[in-house]
Amino acid sequence: MISRNPQLNRTGELQHLLTTEGLPATILLEILDTAESFVGVTERDVKKIPLLRGKSVFNLFFEPSTRTLTTFEIAAKRLSADVHNLNVAVSSQSKGETLLDTVNNLSAMDADMFVVRHLQSGAAHLIASHVQPDIHVINAGDGRHAHPTQALLDMFTIRRYKQDFRNLRVAIVGDILHSRVARSEIHALTTLGVPEVRVIAPKTLLPAKVERLGVHVYHDMVKGLKGVDVLMMLRLQNERMQGANLPSPEEYFKYYGLTQEKLSLAQPDAIVMHPGPLNRGVEIDSAVADGKQSVILSQVTFGIAVRMAVMSILAGN
Amino acid sequence: MISRNPQLNRTGELQHLLTTEGLPATILLEILDTAESFVGVTERDVKKIPLLRGKSVFNLFFEPSTRTLTTFEIAAKRLSADVHNLNVAVSSQSKGETLLDTVNNLSAMDADMFVVRHLQSGAAHLIASHVQPDIHVINAGDGRHAHPTQALLDMFTIRRYKQDFRNLRVAIVGDILHSRVARSEIHALTTLGVPEVRVIAPKTLLPAKVERLGVHVYHDMVKGLKGVDVLMMLRLQNERMQGANLPSPEEYFKYYGLTQEKLSLAQPDAIVMHPGPLNRGVEIDSAVADGKQSVILSQVTFGIAVRMAVMSILAGN
Amino acid sequence: MISRNPQLNRTGELQHLLTTEGLPATILLEILDTAESFVGVTERDVKKIPLLRGKSVFNLFFEPSTRTLTTFEIAAKRLSADVHNLNVAVSSQSKGETLLDTVNNLSAMDADMFVVRHLQSGAAHLIASHVQPDIHVINAGDGRHAHPTQALLDMFTIRRYKQDFRNLRVAIVGDILHSRVARSEIHALTTLGVPEVRVIAPKTLLPAKVERLGVHVYHDMVKGLKGVDVLMMLRLQNERMQGANLPSPEEYFKYYGLTQEKLSLAQPDAIVMHPGPLNRGVEIDSAVADGKQSVILSQVTFGIAVRMAVMSILAGN
Repeated sequence: MISRNPQLNRTGELQHLLTTEGLPATILLEILDTAESFVGVTERDVKKIPLLRGKSVFNLFFEPSTRTLTTFEIAAKRLSADVHNLNVAVSSQSKGETLLDTVNNLSAMDADMFVVRHLQSGAAHLIASHVQPDIHVINAGDGRHAHPTQALLDMFTIRRYKQDFRNLRVAIVGDILHSRVARSEIHALTTLGVPEVRVIAPKTLLPAKVERLGVHVYHDMVKGLKGVDVLMMLRLQNERMQGANLPSPEEYFKYYGLTQEKLSLAQPDAIVMHPGPLNRGVEIDSAVADGKQSVILSQVTFGIAVRMAVMSILAGN
Repeated sequence: MISRNPQLNRTGELQHLLTTEGLPATILLEILDTAESFVGVTERDVKKIPLLRGKSVFNLFFEPSTRTLTTFEIAAKRLSADVHNLNVAVSSQSKGETLLDTVNNLSAMDADMFVVRHLQSGAAHLIASHVQPDIHVINAGDGRHAHPTQALLDMFTIRRYKQDFRNLRVAIVGDILHSRVARSEIHALTTLGVPEVRVIAPKTLLPAKVERLGVHVYHDMVKGLKGVDVLMMLRLQNERMQGANLPSPEEYFKYYGLTQEKLSLAQPDAIVMHPGPLNRGVEIDSAVADGKQSVILSQVTFGIAVRMAVMSILAGN
Repeated sequence: MISRNPQLNRTGELQHLLTTEGLPATILLEILDTAESFVGVTERDVKKIPLLRGKSVFNLFFEPSTRTLTTFEIAAKRLSADVHNLNVAVSSQSKGETLLDTVNNLSAMDADMFVVRHLQSGAAHLIASHVQPDIHVINAGDGRHAHPTQALLDMFTIRRYKQDFRNLRVAIVGDILHSRVARSEIHALTTLGVPEVRVIAPKTLLPAKVERLGVHVYHDMVKGLKGVDVLMMLRLQNERMQGANLPSPEEYFKYYGLTQEKLSLAQPDAIVMHPGPLNRGVEIDSAVADGKQSVILSQVTFGIAVRMAVMSILAGN
C-alpha cells in the first residue's frame, strides 16, 4: 500500500501545507503564481478581497512569535477571514489539556483553518493527521523541522529577481543545524530545479550527512560565495553560540558574517536574503543589510502575498 | 414594593444574562429555540450574519480564560460585531482604577455589550446594576456563583439528544462545592422541569444544605448513576484536591472518575457531558470521553450557537 | 533653508500627528470640526463607516497601556480599518531587533498607519522621519514629551462646553513636570487663543522656566483656582511622590487634591476634566469626579470621535 502524501487530498490537491519536502514542483509553482496576483492587492488602496469571508482562521501559537503571527493575521484579514489568535502557551495547555483536545475543541467550534507554530517538530503533522477533511492546517514553524511559508516566500523573491531557477547558484549561510528555514529552503530549491545549492557553515552548525539533501558543503565563505547568484543568510540564535564553540558574536561575524567585502566574491548582481529579525553585526553587516543588493524587505512584502496564496488555495480545495 | 428581576427589563424581556437562577422557563426556551437557528449558520460556508453589525462587544476578562474568551469572540464575530478583548487583570486595575471606573469608561466609549469574567461572585451583577439601560451584560463566570451560558449550552445539548426535559434523570458528578457550572446547571434543569436531579460527590466537595436546591444527594457512584439518562461530569481543579482530603488524582479517579464500567450502570442510551477542559484519568477515563456516549464535542459546537443566541436576543431587547 | 514642520506634507496638510506644538490653529480646528461629525456616528445603531476600509492600522505599543490602545482600536474599527495590535515590548525587541527594523518590516507589509506609544520622548518623531510618504504616524504618548490626541480631545470637550476659547481662564493642576498631557494641552490652549493658562503645582512638580510656555504659575490652589472656567486635573503617578518630597497621597490631597470646597473658588459654571485613570482621594475627591461639574466621561466619549477624526484626516491626505 502506498502511503499517501499527507499534504495532498485524494485528487492530489493541497490539503495542508506542512513542509516543502515532498511537495511537487507543480504545487510550489501554483502557490507562487497565485501569490503574484496578491502582490497587486496589497498595493491597492483597499487591500481586501472577500475570498475567505465568513471563514474562521485560528492562529495556534504554542511558541510565541509576534512577527510571524502578524504576517498570518494580515494575510487572513486581507482575505476577509475572521481571525482568532490563540497564545496557547499560556492557556489551556497550562490547565493540562492535551494538544489534540485543544484542536478537537476548536474544530468543534467550526474552525476552517489552523496556522500552527510549535516548539516540537511534527506538531503540525500530528494536528493535520487528526482533523476532519474540511479543516486545513498550515505549519508556521515546528521545532527544527520545517517552515514552509518562509521557504515559499523566499522562492517567490528569487523568481521575482532571477526569473529562472534552473541556472542559479544559491548559498545558504549560517546555522544550518538548528534551522527549519534552511531545511525548507533546500527542499524547495532542489524541487524547483536549482542546479547548485551550497551550504556554508562551521562544522558544528551543520547536520550530520547534510550532503544527502543534495547540497554542496563549504566551511569557508571565500570559497563558498564564489560566483553565487543568491545568498540566503540565516539568523544566529545567541543561545546556539556555545554549542558551536564560538567564543563570541564578533568571532562569528569575522568568519561567517556577510560584509560588503565578502559579498563582492559573489556575482555582481547577486541578491542578499535574510528571514529576519536581523542580528546586525553578527550574521550580517548593516551596510549589506541596507545595501542595494539586499532584498530583505521585499521578502517581507512578498511574505504577505504568499501566505494569502496558500490560504486561498487551501480554502478552495 | 417588588424587587424586579435584575436580568429582565420593564417589559419582562432579557436585559442581562447573569445567572440561570430565577430566569423563567419561557426565557430559557427562547434562548434554546433561537440557538437552533444559529447551529445552521455555523455549518454554512460563510459563517456570518449581520445581526450585530456596528455594535461594540467588550470581553472584560478580569480572570484569564482563553477558552471561554474564544467562544464569545467567535460568537460575536459571526454576528458581525466589533469585538474588543480586554485582559483587565493586567491593565487599568493595576493602576488602581476601580471596577466601576473601568466600566464607566468603556460605557462612555459607546459599548453595547459587556461579557464579564471575574474571580469574585457578583461582579457581573454589580456591573449590570450600574450601566445605562442600552448596555447589556453577560456573565461569563463569576467566582463560585454562576456560569449561565455554560448551563444553557448544556440544556441545549440535553434537549438535542433527549428531546423532553420532563422525564429525565440527570446526575451531576464531582466538585459541586466550588463549581459555578453545577450551580447554574441545577437551576436551569429544575426550571425546565427535569423531575430528578442528582448530585454525586464526596461530602467534602458538596455545599452545606445542597438539598435545598431540589437535588438528591449521593456519595456513591454505584448508587447515584443507576438509571440516569444524562451524566454531567465536572472538572476537578487540582488545587481543590487537598481541601477535599483526597490524597491523589488516582484516588479521586477510583471513586469518582467515570469509567466505562461505572457508565454501564446508567441507562444504555445515557449521554456523557463535561464542560472542559478535560482532566483525562482524573474525573473521566479517556475511553469514555472519546466513546460513543460522549457528547462533549457537541457541547462545544452548540456553545457557539447558544452564545450567538444570547447576544442577539440581548441586542434586540 | 527653512526646516519644514515634520507633521505637515508639502501642501501644508497633516501628514503625521506627533505633537500639538507648532500645529497651526487651522489644523487643530479642522480636527475638532471633523470630530463633530463622528460624535453622531458613535451614537448611531450601526457605529461604523467605511472611510478606512481595507487600510491596515498598526498599534505599536512599546509601553503597555490597555486603555489608550483600546480607544485607538475602537476608533479604527469604527472606520472599518483592519487593526493589528502589537505589544512590541514582549516581541521582536526582545530578539534584539531595533525600533527602525521593526518599523521597516511592518511598512514592508503595506502598513497605512502607525499608532505609536513609547517610553522614550521622540520615538514617534523618529519613526515619522523614517517611513515612506504614504504612511502616517500618530503619537499616542512618548515619554514626557507629548500626547496630542489627549490634548485634542480635551480641546474638543472645552469647546463643546464653553464654545469660545478666546475668553477663558484655564488651570492645569498637578504633576506638570512629568506630564506629556500637560505639555500638549498648554500648546493647544495657547494656539487656540486661550488668553490665560495657569499651572498649579508644588515647585518640585514644575519644569524649570515653565513660564516660557506662556503660562502663569501658582503654587497655591486657593489663589490659582480663583475665577477659572476650566480645571484640568492631572493624574499623580505614585512613583513620583518621593521625588516631589510628598510624604503621602493624603498630604498631596490636602494641598492639591480637588474637593468641592476648592472647586467653589472657580467660576460657578466651571468644568472639571481629568485624563484618567482617576486616583480617587489623591488628585481628586470622588464627590467632584462624579459631581455635576465633572465632564470626565464626556472626555472619554469625545476621545473616540477625535481619534476617528485624526485617522480619517491623515488617511485622506
